[in-house]
Amino acid sequence: MTDWGARAADHLEALAGFSAPGPGVTRMPYGPEHRAAVGYLTGMMEGAGLAVHLDAAATLVGRAEGGGAGTFYMGSHQDSVPEGGAFDGIAGVVLPVLAMQMLSEEGVQLPFAVEVLGFADEEGVRFPTALVGSRAVAGTVDMAVLDMEDRDGVSLRAALEGFGCDPAGIPSIARTGNRALGYLEAHIEQGPVLEAEGEALGVVTGICGIERHTLRFVGETGHAGTVPMAARKDALVGAARVITEVDRLARATPGIRATVGQVDVRPGAVNAVPGEVRLPVELRSEDDAARDEAGAEIQAFARRVADEMGLELEARRTYAQPAAPCDPALRGALVQAVQAGGGRGLELTSGATHDASAMADLCPISMLFIRCRGGVSHRPDENASPADLGAAVHAIAETLRRLADA
Amino acid sequence: MTDWGARAADHLEALAGFSAPGPGVTRMPYGPEHRAAVGYLTGMMEGAGLAVHLDAAATLVGRAEGGGAGTFYMGSHQDSVPEGGAFDGIAGVVLPVLAMQMLSEEGVQLPFAVEVLGFADEEGVRFPTALVGSRAVAGTVDMAVLDMEDRDGVSLRAALEGFGCDPAGIPSIARTGNRALGYLEAHIEQGPVLEAEGEALGVVTGICGIERHTLRFVGETGHAGTVPMAARKDALVGAARVITEVDRLARATPGIRATVGQVDVRPGAVNAVPGEVRLPVELRSEDDAARDEAGAEIQAFARRVADEMGLELEARRTYAQPAAPCDPALRGALVQAVQAGGGRGLELTSGATHDASAMADLCPISMLFIRCRGGVSHRPDENASPADLGAAVHAIAETLRRLADA
Repeated sequence: MTDWGARAADHLEALAGFSAPGPGVTRMPYGPEHRAAVGYLTGMMEGAGLAVHLDAAATLVGRAEGGGAGTFYMGSHQDSVPEGGAFDGIAGVVLPVLAMQMLSEEGVQLPFAVEVLGFADEEGVRFPTALVGSRAVAGTVDMAVLDMEDRDGVSLRAALEGFGCDPAGIPSIARTGNRALGYLEAHIEQGPVLEAEGEALGVVTGICGIERHTLRFVGETGHAGTVPMAARKDALVGAARVITEVDRLARATPGIRATVGQVDVRPGAVNAVPGEVRLPVELRSEDDAARDEAGAEIQAFARRVADEMGLELEARRTYAQPAAPCDPALRGALVQAVQAGGGRGLELTSGATHDASAMADLCPISMLFIRCRGGVSHRPDENASPADLGAAVHAIAETLRRLADA
Repeated sequence: MTDWGARAADHLEALAGFSAPGPGVTRMPYGPEHRAAVGYLTGMMEGAGLAVHLDAAATLVGRAEGGGAGTFYMGSHQDSVPEGGAFDGIAGVVLPVLAMQMLSEEGVQLPFAVEVLGFADEEGVRFPTALVGSRAVAGTVDMAVLDMEDRDGVSLRAALEGFGCDPAGIPSIARTGNRALGYLEAHIEQGPVLEAEGEALGVVTGICGIERHTLRFVGETGHAGTVPMAARKDALVGAARVITEVDRLARATPGIRATVGQVDVRPGAVNAVPGEVRLPVELRSEDDAARDEAGAEIQAFARRVADEMGLELEARRTYAQPAAPCDPALRGALVQAVQAGGGRGLELTSGATHDASAMADLCPISMLFIRCRGGVSHRPDENASPADLGAAVHAIAETLRRLADA
C-alpha cells in the first residue's frame, strides 16, 4: 500500500531545495527558484495524469478532464516568505496532485474536470501586491498592478515576461464563463489550535476579514524630572489604555482577534515624557459586522481616553478586507472525509488570508487545515508530519469521491 | 536706576552667539565656543570687581575677598545641549555676577568671600560623564573619568590640556579644607510650575533622587490572524498594564514623578503578536525612601502581571542617585529675598539634576528657579523674560545681604 504521507514529505523536501541561499526556504515569484519548482511540479502533475501549462499570470495549471460539465479547482501558492518554511503554500499544490494520482491509480472517473493550480505569488513579498494568480483565475485582477515595481525597479509586467508569460493574456485566464464548481485549498494551519486539540486535520469555517486602524495620540513632551504628574499630557499613557482595551475587547467578543503589534514613541528617551505615540490596531473576524462594530468601539474608546487626558487623537481606518465564508456543502463534504479517515472533523476559522480569499469571487470555497508543529509558520522550523500530510491526501481524495457521488 | 534684567538679557544674548552653527545654542565644553564664552565672562567678572582664573577642571572662577572667614559659592554651567537654548546653565553664571556688581556699586562689604563658578560641563553631552567641574570643587572627582573619550576619540584629559588646563591639578581644586559656607545656583525652572502659578521666581526645596529600572517582558510571538486570543502571551499587553500603573502610582503618591519614555516592541509588525517588549521606568523624588518603595512596587506589579499572563519578566534597577535636600537656612533667606522683591516665595522641587547636586557633597546648597516660557528647556525657543531675570539678580543680591546680616 502506498504511503502517501511519505511521498508528500519527500516531494516537499525536494521542492524546499529550490531556494535562494540562507536558512529555510526563500522562493520568490518569477525567479530561478520558481522556475525550478515549476519544472518539478510539472513532472509530478504529468505523472498524476494531468495536462499541464503555465498561464499568463505564471500559475502552473494541471488539468484532468471530467465526465461532465464544470471544473473543480484545488491549489495554493508556490512562493515562500524570505527564510520561510517548506510547507506554507507549496503543500497545497503537492497534496491535491497526490490525491489526483491516488484516484487515478484507483481508476476513479470524476464527473467533473479538476484543475490543480500552483499560484506564483500569494505572500506579496517581492511586489507591493499579491494574489495576482488567483485573482486572474477569478477575473478580478486590476491590470494597473502590472506597473508595480520590486526593489530593483523591475515591474511585475517585466518579471512575468521574463518568466515566459504574456501579461496581456491575463484577462483571458478568467474562469467566469466556465462552470466553476468550487475551490479547495489545503494549507498548514499556521496556528496552535489543531495541535492543542490533538487533531491532524481541521475544516475551515471561513477566512476572517481584516481591518487596520492607525491611532496617533499627541500630548506634550517635557523633561521627566521637571513636569509634575498633574501637568502631564503623556501620549504613551493614553496609548497603553488602548492597548489594554484592544486585548480585553477581543477576549470578551467571540470570534474577534485584535492586536497592537507596534508602538512608535516620540521623542523616545528614558527621561522625556512621551509627546506623540502612533500605534496600529488590527482586527480580524469571520463576521464583518462584528468586526466593524469592534473597530468602531476601539476608536470610540480611544476618543474617550484622549478627551479625558487632554490629548489630541487622529484615528483612521486604513484598510478593510471583508471575510470570505466557506461553502456549507463543501465544508460538510470535507468534515465527512476527515471523519472517514478517523479524525473528529474539527471546524476552525482562518485568521490568515489565502488564495482562497481571491477564489471566493469566482466560486464556493473551502479549506483543509493541516496541523503544524508549535503553530509555527514563516520560519525555517515550520513543520507538518508525514502522517498528517498523508491524512490530508486521503481526505482530499475522499472529498472528491463524495462530491462525485453528490 | 540700572535695569539689571535688561543687562542680564543683553549678556545672555551676546553669550548665545558663542555657538556652533545650527538652530539655538550648541556650546560643548573645551571647544572654541567655550573659549569665547570664557573670554566674555572674564570681562564681565572683572567688571564686577572679581579676581578671575580658570581652574584645572576648566571652571571659570571669579572671586571677591570678604571681610571674614569662609567662602560662599554661586554659579552654574556654561555648556548647552546640542541645539539648546540661551538660558539653561549660563544664566546661573551671569546673574550672580550681576548681583555682585550691584552690591559692589552699592558699596556693600560682605563678611565672607564669594566665588562665582562657571562650570565647563554639566550636560554630559560630549563625554560619557558630567559635573566634573562641580565635583572637582567638592573634591569628589574620580580621576578615572579623565580617560573617557568623546566620539572623536579625544580623551577628557586631552580636551582639558588642549583648553590650557592641567588635569593633574584637579585634586588641588577641592575646597574641602576651606570653610565652605554654602552654594546658591540660579537656573531656569525647565518646568511649568512657576508659569502656572504666575510667579517669576521659586525657591527649591531639594533636588530629586533618580532611579531607573529596565523591564523586559517575554511572551510568544505569532501571526495576529492565526493565534486565538486565549492562546496568546502578548508581551505588549503586559507592558501596557505596567505603563498605566506607573502613571497611576505616581499620581497617587505625593512627591513622586514616574515616567515610561520608550517602548521597544519585537518583532514589531502590524500583524505579529508582540513576543518581547523592553521598557525603562524612571522614578524621581526628593524622598529617597518613598522613591525606593515606589520602585519596588512597580517591580512587584510587573511581576504579578507576568505571572497572571504567563510572561517571563526580567526586572533590574539599573541606576540610582540619592536626593539632595536644600539647606533650610539658605532656603529661608531665599524665600525672604524673593518676598522682598514682591514675590510669594513659592517653594518647589527640582526634578532635574544640577551642579548643585555635586556641590551638596561640599556644603549646604540652595537653588533659585526662574520662570521659563512654556516650561520649555533644551530647545532653541527656551526663554526667560528680562523682567524675571532682573528679579533674580535682585533676589540673589538680597540673599547675600541677608546672609551677611545673619
